[in-house]
Amino acid sequence: MSVTDELLENNRRWAATFDKGGLSNRPRKKVAIVSCMDARFLPSRVLGIEEGDAHIIRNAGGVVTDDEIRSLAISQHLLGTEEIVLIHHTNCGLEGIGEDEIRAQLREAAGGVDPPWRIEAFADVDESVRESVRRITDSPFIPHKNVRGFVYEVENGLLREVEA
Amino acid sequence: MSVTDELLENNRRWAATFDKGGLSNRPRKKVAIVSCMDARFLPSRVLGIEEGDAHIIRNAGGVVTDDEIRSLAISQHLLGTEEIVLIHHTNCGLEGIGEDEIRAQLREAAGGVDPPWRIEAFADVDESVRESVRRITDSPFIPHKNVRGFVYEVENGLLREVEA
Repeated sequence: MSVTDELLENNRRWAATFDKGGLSNRPRKKVAIVSCMDARFLPSRVLGIEEGDAHIIRNAGGVVTDDEIRSLAISQHLLGTEEIVLIHHTNCGLEGIGEDEIRAQLREAAGGVDPPWRIEAFADVDESVRESVRRITDSPFIPHKNVRGFVYEVENGLLREVEA
Repeated sequence: MSVTDELLENNRRWAATFDKGGLSNRPRKKVAIVSCMDARFLPSRVLGIEEGDAHIIRNAGGVVTDDEIRSLAISQHLLGTEEIVLIHHTNCGLEGIGEDEIRAQLREAAGGVDPPWRIEAFADVDESVRESVRRITDSPFIPHKNVRGFVYEVENGLLREVEA
């Protein structure tokens, strides 16, 4: 049995007691979370978020690229959110690795095709949070600029705020 | 108190009983989930995923764009995942809306600046899942092509597989 099949079995068990059918697609708390995809934490548990509360956007690093701007623009313009919580974390796979080195590794594995996007590797997690916050505050597509940036500490479960 | 402050209070309570400090950054189940950011469901609960198990990538629609290819490439090349579960859902905010209409709305709100990305609106959720699966299978940057696409039914909590 593949892992996917195992997860589908979990889904059938979960659906058997399903009671979330009446929720609105407009997040109750009017907040969007942007966070890393890292396996070690679930933003919903870290922040006490329940179904119906918030949009949760995740990618490698929690780095804001065009697709996070797109998601946040849709979140605010179409679905009524007004605050943004941005979360990177300690011991990230993208921290301290070489942008050019990883790019070369991917190019080689892809038979010589160069990735048409940045890897978004970073040297300093606090500076990376600040840069992602800036990409949000600089975007003309995100009307509500109530954004705060944090580093989640995988060692102790706490969010540490990064000052702009 | 802002919603962000409320979430930070939740975080302090959560960290007080934190016991996830020893996890590896390599997902135990070697799987990456790509899903919509929708507030009504948490992929971890829908699939029975715990901390340490899986990468979870989320955006507006669960649509695969360059940034999801980047995240999946990092997930597989650097962090050892080998399967992908792609999830769109019923009653999505991006389904049945007009790409050009939303683009015009964003342009107007942005003072005439045109978004440099597609909105990724779609007419048919099954076809959107197939298109996102194709973007993964067509990418030279994702070595493991074990990808299956699903529609999460917000009405009953079940995942329905979309045949390629």
